[in-house]
This record gives sequence, C-alpha cells and structure tokens, in this order.
Amino acid sequence: MPITTPLTTQLGIDHPILLAPMDIVAGSRLVTAVSRAGGFGVLGGGYGERLWLEQETAKLKDLRAPFGIGFITWSLARCPELLDIALAAKPAAIMLSFGDPAPFAPKIKSAGARLICQVQDEAMARQALDAGADILIAQGTEAGGHGASRTTVDLVPGIVDLAAGRVPVVAAGGIADGRGLAAMMMLGASGVLLGTRFYASQEADGADEAKRRICDATSGSTVRGIIFDLSRNNVWPAPFTGRCLINDHARRWMGREVELMQNVAKVAADYAAAKASGNFDVTAVIAGEAVGLIHDIPPAAEIIERIATEAEQLLARRRNSIASAA
Amino acid sequence: MPITTPLTTQLGIDHPILLAPMDIVAGSRLVTAVSRAGGFGVLGGGYGERLWLEQETAKLKDLRAPFGIGFITWSLARCPELLDIALAAKPAAIMLSFGDPAPFAPKIKSAGARLICQVQDEAMARQALDAGADILIAQGTEAGGHGASRTTVDLVPGIVDLAAGRVPVVAAGGIADGRGLAAMMMLGASGVLLGTRFYASQEADGADEAKRRICDATSGSTVRGIIFDLSRNNVWPAPFTGRCLINDHARRWMGREVELMQNVAKVAADYAAAKASGNFDVTAVIAGEAVGLIHDIPPAAEIIERIATEAEQLLARRRNSIASAA
Ligand SMILES: Cc1cc2nc3c(=O)[nH]c(=O)nc-3n(C[C@H](O)[C@H](O)[C@H](O)COP(=O)(O)O)c2cc1C
Ligand SMILES: Cc1cc2nc3c(=O)[nH]c(=O)nc-3n(C[C@H](O)[C@H](O)[C@H](O)COP(=O)(O)O)c2cc1C
Repeated sequence: MPITTPLTTQLGIDHPILLAPMDIVAGSRLVTAVSRAGGFGVLGGGYGERLWLEQETAKLKDLRAPFGIGFITWSLARCPELLDIALAAKPAAIMLSFGDPAPFAPKIKSAGARLICQVQDEAMARQALDAGADILIAQGTEAGGHGASRTTVDLVPGIVDLAAGRVPVVAAGGIADGRGLAAMMMLGASGVLLGTRFYASQEADGADEAKRRICDATSGSTVRGIIFDLSRNNVWPAPFTGRCLINDHARRWMGREVELMQNVAKVAADYAAAKASGNFDVTAVIAGEAVGLIHDIPPAAEIIERIATEAEQLLARRRNSIASAA
Repeated sequence: MPITTPLTTQLGIDHPILLAPMDIVAGSRLVTAVSRAGGFGVLGGGYGERLWLEQETAKLKDLRAPFGIGFITWSLARCPELLDIALAAKPAAIMLSFGDPAPFAPKIKSAGARLICQVQDEAMARQALDAGADILIAQGTEAGGHGASRTTVDLVPGIVDLAAGRVPVVAAGGIADGRGLAAMMMLGASGVLLGTRFYASQEADGADEAKRRICDATSGSTVRGIIFDLSRNNVWPAPFTGRCLINDHARRWMGREVELMQNVAKVAADYAAAKASGNFDVTAVIAGEAVGLIHDIPPAAEIIERIATEAEQLLARRRNSIASAA
C-alpha cells in the first residue's frame, strides 16, 4: 500500500521521500541509490564546483529514474552557467534554496524541469510561488545545515495554508523515520525531504567519522549559529544560519562570536588545518536535530524502505483503531 | 468516531485534548468549559496565589467532569501547603511543570490523584518517571510561556521512545488545530495540551486586548527569552525562558538584556505601571508560535469540537486514501 500524494504523482516516484541536496555529501552515488529505491534523489550542487558538477552529472546519465539537482541560490547567482551544466543532465527538477529563485525560473521551466524551492517563511514562499515554483519545501529550524528560526511544526501548516493546494508542500527539518513522515502528512504535507538521515547512509559521500558521530549524537546536541561559517570564512546572508553537531570548537566559541571575529585569521587557519586532517573535534559535522533518531548507517534503499513501511503501517493502524472505536 | 487513546482512558475524557494550566488565564471558568466539553481542564495554579486558588477551586466543586490543577514546581516548593488546598478540591490529576516533582509525588498519589509532569528534555522525563509520573507532557520550544529550547517535532518522538509505552505522552507547543493533534498522534503521542489556543477563547481570564493581539499575530511574531521575566523582576532558574508576542518593549530590549539588567529598577517600575494600565505595547502577552493558526475567540467547547472533528476526519480520510491506493 504505497503512499500516493500529489508529490509522488508530479515527480513520478514510488515514495514521498526526497533526498536533500547536501553539498558534497549527496553525490551521484547517493542520488542513484535514493532514486532507484523509489525516492527522489537530489544532487547536492551546493556552492557550485564546476568540475564536481560535471563529473557527478555524467555519472547520472544512465540512471533510469527521476532525480533532481539542487543549488544554493545566492551562490548560483555568482556562477549562473552552472545551471546549464545541470539542465544538460536532464534532471526532472532543479531545487533552489536560500535566495530569490526568479532569475533562474524561466530557464529551468523552458528546459522542461520542475522548479522546487526550499523556503523558511511565508514571505519566501510567496516569492517562490510568484517565480513559478512547482513544489515548495517548508524547512524548519531543526534541519541540518543552513536554515532559519521557525520550527517545522509551526512552519509546515503555515506554508500548506499559503499554498492552498496549488502546489505540493514538502516538510523538511528533524524528520528521520516513518512517524515523522506520517505526522507531516497529517499537517498537510505531501512528503518529506531528508538530509541528516541520508548523511548516515552507506552511499553518502561523507567521512566515516562524521557518519559515526551522527549515530552517536543525541537530540539536543546540535546547535544553529554562525560559528562554523565564521571559522571557514563563509558567512551567509541573513537570516540564514547553520546547524551542526556541537563539538569542542563549537563549545569553545558559542556566545563568543565577536571574539571569534576579532581572531578570525588565526581561527580560520586552524580550522582549515583541522579539516584537512579530518579532525572533527574542530571541523563541524553538519547535521540536524534528527540525529536523536539515527543510530545506524544502512544503505539508502533500506532507509527508504523502513520509513515508507513504518508510515504506511502507522496510517493503516490508525484506520483500524478508528474503525474499532466507531 | 471519537479518538480513543491511553490518555482518554486513563483520565476518563472524551477527547485527547488538555487545557494548559495557564497562570491566571486558565481559571475555573475555562476549566469548567473545557472539562464539560469532553476535554481535560487544568486550573492554572501558576506561582500559587493562595486566595485565588481557594476561590477558583471552590467554583469547581460542582463540576461533574474530571479536571486537574497545575503548579510551577519550583514555586510550589516555596509554598507547599498550596498542594493541600488543591488536593482538597479532589482533582483527577495534579500537573507539575519546571522542577523536580519527587517531593510532591507521594502526597499526590496517596490522595488518589494522577501525577502529570511537563518536561522539556529526556533527563527531566527520566526524573518524572522516577518520581512516579502517570502522564508525561513533552513541551516543545514553540509553546507559549515558559519552556526550553528543544522543538516539538524533535522532543515528542524522543520522549515517546523513552516512555516506551509505560505512560501516555502528551504533546505541547505550537498546536492549535486538528492537523496538529493528528500529527502528534502519528509521532506516538496520546493527545495534546494546548495553551495559546485556549487563551483566545471566551472563557479565558485574560484581557480582551491580549486575546485580540493573539488573533492578529502571525507565526514568527513571538520570541523566547528573558526580557519579560527581567522586566517583572521574576527571572526563572535555567534552562527556562519565556515565550511571548513581540511588542514594542520586546523589540526595544532584544539582544540588550545586559543593559536591561543594568537599568532594571527603572524598567521594572515602567513595566509595572504599563501592566496596571493595560498597555500591551509594553506588557507581554504570553503566547506561543501557534498564534499563526489562531484567528478568532470562540467558546472553549467550540475549539474542542473543531479540533476533535478535524483530527477525526484527517485520520479517517487517510484510511480511505490508503484503502483506495491498496
Ligand atoms: C550535511 C548537510 C548539507 C546540506 N547542504 C545543503 C545544500 O548544499 N543546499 C541546500 O539547499 N540544503 C542543504 N542542506 C539542508 C537540506 O536541504 C535540508 O533542509 C535538511 O537537511 C533537512 O533537515 P534534516 O537534516 O533534519 O533532514 C544540508 C543539510 C545537511 C545535513
Ligand atoms: C498565557 C500562558 C500562561 C502559561 N502559564 C503556565 C503555568 O503557569 N504553568 C505551566 O506549567 N505552564 C504554563 N504555560 C505553558 C503551558 O503549560 C503549555 O506548555 C503551552 O501553553 C503549550 O504550548 P501552546 O501555548 O503552543 O499551546 C503557559 C502558557 C501560556 C500561553
């Protein structure tokens, strides 16, 4: 009894589960695994490394399942020709997050790809709809990586009401199991987009140590802020901040951002060195509050199977208990 | 087809909807309305005004439906005889929030009342279970009033897993409609506890202007912090902070808490004067992120009816779409 929603219909997928376009982490291997398993893989175009994008899209040539490619919008604006490389790979959708999608929408649409926009509040959702978004992702503050302050439970119904059935709304942020998928569907979402859960998968292009730390982390052990952006000399435009696991480096600088800025040259040099040597006591593992629900590193197909099955059972069990209460 | 859960069974109520014990706002009138409508009213014992408690419990004498009485635990510890007044009113449950419930549990239990504990993380949940809690409320940061930092979507499954079926878990924070109730049930909760939604009800003991501001507010227009606690000379023990609507006073002091503390005598005097004159540009309206879902001030019974009906329909519709997809 697969779950059918306007999202699965529009994208032609079996399960309403999207892979988040995680910069570097969501490479062609993970995209292939997710899309082959009936989800929707989205390549993590991130800040836009031209060579990486060419290599990874080339590897998607023979994927006989729909997939997407994601970009950080304000970064794509600096290097718009990357969109041509992406569209040449014939993705079913381009996903844009963090910035005005309008300048890119016409090219995406005329290439026959869907436009997926990830938004963090109602104003951004309106901007995305005006630009012609086909699907909205409502991203709550629980999410790993960059985002803003509104929570998933607060934001999802708000965006669902605003979309008013015109486009499917997908929930993101803090979801890692079938309970989360079923809950988001009750809030009116047509599916979920998962980052952190897929980071801890076999096919993710991330360090084994990072994946292990995600498994070991408990809820409440991530923090949203600008420390890791400051430390790698990559501060984002407001209102976006980044969520990662709390490590020694985060503990050292939390609440002392001004002092960090005053010492940024030294801190950034140390941070770069730590990153090169794979020292995750300093380097941030980008991950969200869903870490509390993640305890293993299975193949991506197994993650999809588990989530879909659990959600289907929950929704069916609900049917039974209602029936018996009737 | 009413929704039956371990919570409704344990408390003997028709709908899995609890009124939050809002200090002053949840008086005997609102408790009566909620409990008569098949929910579970909880009197807002708050900081414990002896006279108020005696008056309000007296008015609950003839209520032929189960109800509870709530206290702020760290405050009750300063005036423990209030518990005797509460228990004399024969509540079905005493609800304790914000502090160690252990010192009060034996008396509550031996009086034949259930112990409901509101918790903000797993450590507090363990403490409550050790003290013999019969019901746990998992309160996310979206909640109006005092609370902590973990979000509802993150916290509820965590507490459900920890409770492991031993006691019902109720979700609180950011819920104001049937979608929220249905979603929380998918996360494993047995019901919901609502504050902000019931504040904007006819029977709530709050200023009309405060209720109107809740209706007018959009999501994202509340803030969690210590400004209003500082301004009324009532700073809470960590990790608790308070959420209220952003007004002129909040806008003025956000991010300038240290300066506020340095001027606290003057600020507190101005704040007290504003409160006395009902000036809500200065006085805080205590409310949570659910304000975005609240646009009217109906009778409490209508709120319960709407939420229960919407949740029942959502859960039933789900049954149909699954059935048709089978
Ligand atoms: C490691 C990591 C990298 C991410 N990189 C990006 C990115 O490059 N572009 C983007 O739009 N979102 C990025 N995100 C955010 C996701 O799009 C998504 O909103 C988030 O992962 C959902 O929350 P979850 O992590 O709780 O599943 C990233 C998330 C993670 C965990
Ligand atoms: C006006 C107001 C006053 C509150 N006072 C109390 C209180 O005295 N004791 C308590 O345990 N919780 C209090 N709370 C918090 C509630 O118990 C509950 O966690 C919260 O209202 C749930 O979130 P919601 O407001 O989004 O429904 C208060 C909440 C509000 C809105």
